[in-house]
Amino acid sequence: MRYSTSGGTLLRNVQPLFADLWGGGFAIAHNGNLTNARALRSDLVRQGAIFQSTSDTETILQLTARSQKLNTVERFIDALRQIEGAYSLVVLTNKKLIGVRDPLGIRPLVLGTLAGAPILASETVALDIIGADYVRDVEPGEMIVATKDGIESLHPFPPQRPRPCVFEYIYFARPDSQFGGHSVYNVRKALGAQLAAESNVEADVVVPVPDSGVPAAIGYARASGIPFELGIIRNHYVGRTFIEPTQQIRALGVKLKHNANRAVVEGKRIILVDDSIVRGTTSVKIVKMMYEAGAREVHMRIASPPITHPDFYGIDTPEQEQLLAANYDLEGMRAYIGVDSLAFITVDGLYRALGYEGRDPVYPQFTDHCFTGDYPTPLTDKNGTQRHQLSLLAEIA
Amino acid sequence: MRYSTSGGTLLRNVQPLFADLWGGGFAIAHNGNLTNARALRSDLVRQGAIFQSTSDTETILQLTARSQKLNTVERFIDALRQIEGAYSLVVLTNKKLIGVRDPLGIRPLVLGTLAGAPILASETVALDIIGADYVRDVEPGEMIVATKDGIESLHPFPPQRPRPCVFEYIYFARPDSQFGGHSVYNVRKALGAQLAAESNVEADVVVPVPDSGVPAAIGYARASGIPFELGIIRNHYVGRTFIEPTQQIRALGVKLKHNANRAVVEGKRIILVDDSIVRGTTSVKIVKMMYEAGAREVHMRIASPPITHPDFYGIDTPEQEQLLAANYDLEGMRAYIGVDSLAFITVDGLYRALGYEGRDPVYPQFTDHCFTGDYPTPLTDKNGTQRHQLSLLAEIA
Amino acid sequence: MRYSTSGGTLLRNVQPLFADLWGGGFAIAHNGNLTNARALRSDLVRQGAIFQSTSDTETILQLTARSQKLNTVERFIDALRQIEGAYSLVVLTNKKLIGVRDPLGIRPLVLGTLAGAPILASETVALDIIGADYVRDVEPGEMIVATKDGIESLHPFPPQRPRPCVFEYIYFARPDSQFGGHSVYNVRKALGAQLAAESNVEADVVVPVPDSGVPAAIGYARASGIPFELGIIRNHYVGRTFIEPTQQIRALGVKLKHNANRAVVEGKRIILVDDSIVRGTTSVKIVKMMYEAGAREVHMRIASPPITHPDFYGIDTPEQEQLLAANYDLEGMRAYIGVDSLAFITVDGLYRALGYEGRDPVYPQFTDHCFTGDYPTPLTDKNGTQRHQLSLLAEIA
Amino acid sequence: MRYSTSGGTLLRNVQPLFADLWGGGFAIAHNGNLTNARALRSDLVRQGAIFQSTSDTETILQLTARSQKLNTVERFIDALRQIEGAYSLVVLTNKKLIGVRDPLGIRPLVLGTLAGAPILASETVALDIIGADYVRDVEPGEMIVATKDGIESLHPFPPQRPRPCVFEYIYFARPDSQFGGHSVYNVRKALGAQLAAESNVEADVVVPVPDSGVPAAIGYARASGIPFELGIIRNHYVGRTFIEPTQQIRALGVKLKHNANRAVVEGKRIILVDDSIVRGTTSVKIVKMMYEAGAREVHMRIASPPITHPDFYGIDTPEQEQLLAANYDLEGMRAYIGVDSLAFITVDGLYRALGYEGRDPVYPQFTDHCFTGDYPTPLTDKNGTQRHQLSLLAEIA
Repeated sequence: MRYSTSGGTLLRNVQPLFADLWGGGFAIAHNGNLTNARALRSDLVRQGAIFQSTSDTETILQLTARSQKLNTVERFIDALRQIEGAYSLVVLTNKKLIGVRDPLGIRPLVLGTLAGAPILASETVALDIIGADYVRDVEPGEMIVATKDGIESLHPFPPQRPRPCVFEYIYFARPDSQFGGHSVYNVRKALGAQLAAESNVEADVVVPVPDSGVPAAIGYARASGIPFELGIIRNHYVGRTFIEPTQQIRALGVKLKHNANRAVVEGKRIILVDDSIVRGTTSVKIVKMMYEAGAREVHMRIASPPITHPDFYGIDTPEQEQLLAANYDLEGMRAYIGVDSLAFITVDGLYRALGYEGRDPVYPQFTDHCFTGDYPTPLTDKNGTQRHQLSLLAEIA
Repeated sequence: MRYSTSGGTLLRNVQPLFADLWGGGFAIAHNGNLTNARALRSDLVRQGAIFQSTSDTETILQLTARSQKLNTVERFIDALRQIEGAYSLVVLTNKKLIGVRDPLGIRPLVLGTLAGAPILASETVALDIIGADYVRDVEPGEMIVATKDGIESLHPFPPQRPRPCVFEYIYFARPDSQFGGHSVYNVRKALGAQLAAESNVEADVVVPVPDSGVPAAIGYARASGIPFELGIIRNHYVGRTFIEPTQQIRALGVKLKHNANRAVVEGKRIILVDDSIVRGTTSVKIVKMMYEAGAREVHMRIASPPITHPDFYGIDTPEQEQLLAANYDLEGMRAYIGVDSLAFITVDGLYRALGYEGRDPVYPQFTDHCFTGDYPTPLTDKNGTQRHQLSLLAEIA
Repeated sequence: MRYSTSGGTLLRNVQPLFADLWGGGFAIAHNGNLTNARALRSDLVRQGAIFQSTSDTETILQLTARSQKLNTVERFIDALRQIEGAYSLVVLTNKKLIGVRDPLGIRPLVLGTLAGAPILASETVALDIIGADYVRDVEPGEMIVATKDGIESLHPFPPQRPRPCVFEYIYFARPDSQFGGHSVYNVRKALGAQLAAESNVEADVVVPVPDSGVPAAIGYARASGIPFELGIIRNHYVGRTFIEPTQQIRALGVKLKHNANRAVVEGKRIILVDDSIVRGTTSVKIVKMMYEAGAREVHMRIASPPITHPDFYGIDTPEQEQLLAANYDLEGMRAYIGVDSLAFITVDGLYRALGYEGRDPVYPQFTDHCFTGDYPTPLTDKNGTQRHQLSLLAEIA
Repeated sequence: MRYSTSGGTLLRNVQPLFADLWGGGFAIAHNGNLTNARALRSDLVRQGAIFQSTSDTETILQLTARSQKLNTVERFIDALRQIEGAYSLVVLTNKKLIGVRDPLGIRPLVLGTLAGAPILASETVALDIIGADYVRDVEPGEMIVATKDGIESLHPFPPQRPRPCVFEYIYFARPDSQFGGHSVYNVRKALGAQLAAESNVEADVVVPVPDSGVPAAIGYARASGIPFELGIIRNHYVGRTFIEPTQQIRALGVKLKHNANRAVVEGKRIILVDDSIVRGTTSVKIVKMMYEAGAREVHMRIASPPITHPDFYGIDTPEQEQLLAANYDLEGMRAYIGVDSLAFITVDGLYRALGYEGRDPVYPQFTDHCFTGDYPTPLTDKNGTQRHQLSLLAEIA
């Protein structure tokens, strides 16, 4: 029996936790983020739990350890019923491989098979890499329990309308992954095409911000008929080699990740395509690099709506006050980034690229909280007033 | 406020544990060994505790975390009342330095002072090294609680007759330490003198096994009038330098720790003085080295009685079947070690070197379980039949 | 005064050597490879030189140390006149920064400037990254000597017709670099367009082998009108993360570097564009991956002529017997790689993409030895019969 | 064939150098120090030699590499005839093991045998540790050449009267070593007895400074009839454990190496015996420690004459201005160290402990330059005015 929770991206490369519970060894890996972990932790510590880490995953482990249910699966379910947020979890015990996806299916989880053994992974690309075959997506709220006798499917939660995270398609998942019936690459090309349909402009070349902007730029270029060119080259080795030790050289203005391809940029009107804008700091640098390399005009086109709200479900976003779109209107953002024009895809355009007429205002097909502020779960820790912060500095009693 | 639990020997160099308990940060260091830690741990795990280590010290930590008493000191006492065995413990919280010695005082603990701050240490020599002044021994069963307001002395256990471990004087403590009103060095010299009185033999030189046998050899030489000579030299640097990587050179018969001083040994009748014999393997090698360097006779004299029983209180002894004195009578041991004669100090002789008439058969003044099998506490883990061994290989439920 | 010999690629990331010579400290970095280093080394050792490394760069250092000329620059020139092969060298002494390019200019070397200080680098992209301005290419056979008083240009060799290495344009240099008056990116696109002109085939998509095949594939797609698609995705993080420790998982058939983008490939006729074929082993794997992902046809198009001869000037090629094109004719290669069709660009097509009518048969504009066997320098070490191999195992006298 | 140049002390734990010379691989290890290495190095660098280290041993290697003699042994002898100073050298080539001792025999070198193979070592104790048998001392000026065909003895230097270094007996060699017909341990005891005969004083205990002063203290105690006691205990583990990271604790006045044994010292008149005084800084600390532990009187007795001159032959002494005896007369030293009385052994007393009537003023039996300033070789580097210091900062030409 083998397992993998590692999807194709570094962000998803989670560190499993292990504990020797009463029922036997219990290893758990977690993709996602809980929204009531701090509140639960506070209660657990009051009852005598000793935490080894600051990870929200350990809260699940402690809840499982403490459950007085009869067997491991029931103890684990007992724990799951207390947590809120986004989670795809994989558990390995001596006799079982367990996978579970949160009731809304915010994060993905897929089931594969290799040499007769079940495999669980965040994305299909992880199956491809180890040569496993894709079987199906684990459903929102579904628990898979695999033993040597086969696979069982449980549904330990009350049914809800699924709301998978739309950010997986925009940025988070690998382009060669497929889930929810979509190819991520094709969705991104469709986002680029939709963007061209919504806000094209006359220009000489379409230039992607590598690597994340490439599929949308291909889609944009094809829809608009403007040539696709690599106007920015990634510095693959810079971070790891001669730059590192040299605070001094760094201060000279080193461009750590990207370099302009002057032969493409010089004297040209450029449509710069990126997947999203978060703080805007990278965009400022790249745009500056384009002008310094001789660009005549730079038109920025973003294959997602403006990000006005932070994520609390496992995507690494800053606090709201640092989000560019939470601070500026469109013209303000354009001026900040310093481009000739700036446009984002519309929210309905985003849903259209995914094959819908538009966003269902009553039951949105996805969670799109970063663009709408419509969070699909309670935000207990964020809103809690208690927020007891454990610390060495306080001796309570 | 500063603390140190590190006595003068490497064995006592314990690793503190830390946890963020409900009452605040709690660091604990432990010299000694519990005899019911495994039984307690089994119960704790059943209730949901997750252990981070295999250390018995963590059992104390988990018991403290789980106590529902009102404050840190009471929770700690609650934990102590459940444990059995030998322990000198030092705890540091944000506001308190706590030291406690087990009810029998098996392991030592001393209180010192430096620049007005209290210091706790296993031995006085640790105070000397950091330039602190000795105040007094912490009493068996006493708990010291030091805060910025001063030092408080608690006695949380029912009173018992103390039984400090006699092995501290024989081997475990540094010779320049003092406790229980004795200089360790002087006790060791007295053991050598007593040994000479009990079992002297005609010879040319008294040779100590360095470094542990030196004080007893000085006492023996002075009592017997036979000259003290360094017939064995320690190889201080061997272990760390050119020998290490060379399995091959090792096989050539390298003497890792000692070398004979041929100028002293050759043609001589030698009285070889050591503090104790455990397995006997080192003695065999040293005696062989003496004969190879030309010794005419080798008479071995041991400044402790035969070790017939293992220790369970923090001294690193092998299981009983590996103890030489548990397997052979005196003549058998003499033949195994290959000496011309062999003698141990008597049990009463041991007590006489400590200033008593002999061993009090009803209330022995020390615990001397290694020589007598008279263990002063229950041996719950050793005798327990349950012995549930937690393991990855077992999934119970 | 600052210097950098590190171009944009890892291969060019050379390790400088340093020695304390009679004239003072002397640091040297070398991009390229000598073809008579072994013969020179043998003579030097016979005269008493002690080598610290196996690097051919040290041979230059030892020759410089031993020269009896009057000053550092003359001693260095004395050394250079004895060496053969390809070299761009950068030397730093206490007072001078020296750069020199071999008489044929096989490897590139560019001069830049930053805050008034001269900068030497293999490629212009290194200047871009640190924010320096490009001044000019160092000429073949030219030596630049920079001091605080300014820059001097020397020409210590008899003039020769330059023959820069054409492989820089095909594969070795970064696409965003420019030298010899060409943009590397534009040359690669032109190679792709020329390839389409020479050997196009009916198909659904043009798929690059990432990252090296991307510019040629863009050129090919545009010239042929067939859509450019990312049918292969690089596994950026695989090598560094969860695959590493697992010999066992590796054996499952892990694809270490690439993954097929099934959404692009399935059911399609594919033109697969790569920059070159060396051993052919990677091509075999990638083609297999395409068919397994559902490709209906795979047509391989290579943006360089067949590599029939090894390089001896600093590009890491295997020995001749391992070069695919040295062992098979075109049909044999096609069958080995397992594609529906295979075509390489012609030698004259290569020169056309660089702006010439074709290869000048008398004075070729570049060195193209890997495709023609026409090596521009003697290959002393390769052809030498003496080849004295220094070794611990031989004691000559 | 095996070799060892490592004697029993850490100082002698030399790092071998290796080079791939024209004649084959050549490894060399060196105990001692050259007095003209810097002058020779300067010439070698001028001729083009590149040094890898600052070691004087490399000078011998470079001279050997550069010799144009016919074979390895002759080239090595050619090198030796140019060097001055103290050296015991061991060389290993593919076919030969070579040992050589400088013409005066300043440093020791012994020949042993193990399983039929020759062994070379600085001291006999190294033979003991690996189980080899001692054969004989290598003579001053003798070269041993061992091959598979046996051992040859060469005498490549003009004969001179030997002057082995007397410091080996006083401090440098291990006590369990023997050479020149003497047991080092017995010489040290004799030094202690001679010291008692020359300058005894009424006291209660004789206390050695461990470990180096122990044999002399045993000799002193026996000659004087005053009891030998361990009044100072070494802190074996301090350096390696809890003290290290704590600049802060260090500042508290930690005694890094020694601790007073109060039970021996308190209220006593003490004769403190040490092997030598160099800077005097350690003596000051130890004496202070004795008084703080309650000593009533401290009388210091040193088993060597005052050190007035630095060593240049491999013993690590400071420059002359830092030697206590070069700055103070006896009373000044007594006051500086802060003892009740201070006495050193006389120079003639030193020779008497070694079995002579006294020092032969015409042909001294040993080199005793540290006590007399009578250096047995030229001090070329020390006296040279040229002293060309190679450096990065100077560019000569």
